Amino acid sequence: MQHISALIANLKTQSPLVQSITNYVVMNNTANALLAAGASPIMAHAHSEVKDMVSIVGALVINIGTLDEYWSDSMLHAAAHAHATQKPWVLDPVGAGATPYRNGLLTKLLAYKPSVIRGNASEIMSLASVNIKSKGVDSTNSSDEALDAGIQLSKQTGAVVVISGQVDYIIDGERVAQVKNGNPLMAKVTGMGCTASAITGAMIAIEKDYFLASTAAMVLMGIAGDIASEKAEGPGTLQLYFYDALHNLTAEVIEERMIVAYP
Amino acid sequence: MQHISALIANLKTQSPLVQSITNYVVMNNTANALLAAGASPIMAHAHSEVKDMVSIVGALVINIGTLDEYWSDSMLHAAAHAHATQKPWVLDPVGAGATPYRNGLLTKLLAYKPSVIRGNASEIMSLASVNIKSKGVDSTNSSDEALDAGIQLSKQTGAVVVISGQVDYIIDGERVAQVKNGNPLMAKVTGMGCTASAITGAMIAIEKDYFLASTAAMVLMGIAGDIASEKAEGPGTLQLYFYDALHNLTAEVIEERMIVAYP
Amino acid sequence: MQHISALIANLKTQSPLVQSITNYVVMNNTANALLAAGASPIMAHAHSEVKDMVSIVGALVINIGTLDEYWSDSMLHAAAHAHATQKPWVLDPVGAGATPYRNGLLTKLLAYKPSVIRGNASEIMSLASVNIKSKGVDSTNSSDEALDAGIQLSKQTGAVVVISGQVDYIIDGERVAQVKNGNPLMAKVTGMGCTASAITGAMIAIEKDYFLASTAAMVLMGIAGDIASEKAEGPGTLQLYFYDALHNLTAEVIEERMIVAYP
Repeated sequence: MQHISALIANLKTQSPLVQSITNYVVMNNTANALLAAGASPIMAHAHSEVKDMVSIVGALVINIGTLDEYWSDSMLHAAAHAHATQKPWVLDPVGAGATPYRNGLLTKLLAYKPSVIRGNASEIMSLASVNIKSKGVDSTNSSDEALDAGIQLSKQTGAVVVISGQVDYIIDGERVAQVKNGNPLMAKVTGMGCTASAITGAMIAIEKDYFLASTAAMVLMGIAGDIASEKAEGPGTLQLYFYDALHNLTAEVIEERMIVAYP
Repeated sequence: MQHISALIANLKTQSPLVQSITNYVVMNNTANALLAAGASPIMAHAHSEVKDMVSIVGALVINIGTLDEYWSDSMLHAAAHAHATQKPWVLDPVGAGATPYRNGLLTKLLAYKPSVIRGNASEIMSLASVNIKSKGVDSTNSSDEALDAGIQLSKQTGAVVVISGQVDYIIDGERVAQVKNGNPLMAKVTGMGCTASAITGAMIAIEKDYFLASTAAMVLMGIAGDIASEKAEGPGTLQLYFYDALHNLTAEVIEERMIVAYP
Repeated sequence: MQHISALIANLKTQSPLVQSITNYVVMNNTANALLAAGASPIMAHAHSEVKDMVSIVGALVINIGTLDEYWSDSMLHAAAHAHATQKPWVLDPVGAGATPYRNGLLTKLLAYKPSVIRGNASEIMSLASVNIKSKGVDSTNSSDEALDAGIQLSKQTGAVVVISGQVDYIIDGERVAQVKNGNPLMAKVTGMGCTASAITGAMIAIEKDYFLASTAAMVLMGIAGDIASEKAEGPGTLQLYFYDALHNLTAEVIEERMIVAYP
């Protein structure tokens, strides 16, 4: 477990460049979270430069939240280039299953082999179904069902799969980690999931074991959320204390607070 | 008056899905406000899926703040679909009167019969004028003049008209409610008006009497602003305490604090 | 030095209209900062109205952060119209030097003679090089080197050049001012540089001596940052206290705290 806290501390010294092609709602949040955690955010999506940007960053994060036809192409260009140049990348399948358009784009993006897929239970279950072209989107959010879907999705895609929730699951084929840090109030702040994907991007930029890197990302998110929720009086103050906590976290505090299990 | 506090409390139990096609500046604010108040925000505007999204939500909010040609079409597609399927929707005519382009789009949107139109005094006065194709945009912000314009606009369009200001007016033809909660410092936080429109969207998703629903939305905004401004030392802290207050408000506090008149 | 504090105080009484064509990440921040400082923000970029908007504002700010082909054209239309109608405007060359696409757009924008160019050391150095079509982008961030590049860029373009950093430089040909207010934690909040450009836009809307106006803008930013960092426990709370400070600043506090030198 030493490794996770050391990895988190390394973010601040290595300050990896992380490109996000993400949704309008959370751009500000995720840029602030990356800065607070020690990384350097870049947001660039123009067809005229998206590949040039992928070439200079340590990792790429694609989040399909407020996609449209132009942005879909930006995402596909970026993912293709990341795949071709072996740049690690994270897929955040926001709203998977909500519309055929979203599902169509996700199928294309999966072909470019994301290093990590991070979503909530419904999104991961939907994505597993889309991929095997079977029974359609399951709307239940049961953790157990999502875990099975996550294991299946990881095997199908070769990606590390992260399911965010009260307990976070990090899945690499048969390997599973559980992170039990975090607070329910975090769900009342928009973009906390997207922020988890961004932080995961920062971690895989500095650590090639993506299972370990993703686990560290969820630990960092969860502990910052724990600390913030101890002071917060609601979702507004939680968000601000969350950035403060990300910025102030030390390896010692991580060691002390992290709750990780390998069931 | 019992009804208003009960309605606000219901938001947290019913958690309606609210789709916003809104401006870039306030997306994060409005998503956070909807979450804090108990609703579930969706932001989706792609031509390829905008109608699919309208089909699954409880209400739609269209805010023309940072419109361009693509987004204008998204708004028209969404409004047309909401109209055709009798889904309640809110129009926020940001910057009405500022340019011919904006006025042209607003005329087209009005044809799809918004359930509620919410704006500031200038916007409502401009919109009334646009609609009757008369004397052009009046730049004064007098409440009385705006009230007359609001009554006229409500009669012309069949919509409930909400005029935000130091006193908020909610107008349904001849029926008028006044909400006197709220604090001037709220005007120094960007997107508070847009947030009021979003919260109105959440309310009309759970209450078919749009006059009552809109009044409840303005009461919720105003009281959360009152509570936040008691603690805030400026517009920065006000915004955060505002989300906290939205999240923590109970029916009892609403009853105690609300100042509604029917003149 | 009296003049700087008076100028800052004037923002709140004159409340100039400032149009920003800026990046998605910081739109909310910069709108809030403009409001808190006393100005009125407008964000509008549609080709169908961008010139109409430039016609009604006091100043224009162009920030190329998350540019794409549509937005590039918006920026060019707006800059051309500002140039043709002698409206003052600020160029914020975010990511100058990162890609050929960005550099190409910057070259075109410079042809429309920005009143002020504000960037960090790397961006200013890159821009000076782009313009003289010489040795390519220098990646070092040395203040001295950036100062020389800034002087050169100011002479080439006729613009006031502002270099943000631990010490801010304001350059008008041979004239140089240094502002030493500000705190390193500000660099951990996304969009602080973009906010400085927006505030500069507000200042040049009310003061035709752009060297003085830009110096006042950097003083305002720096002192608000100083005050905020005295209370903040990290970048999250810093951002909020920063808006509070912008809103509450008086000419007296400016006089007391400002550290300006003309070396």
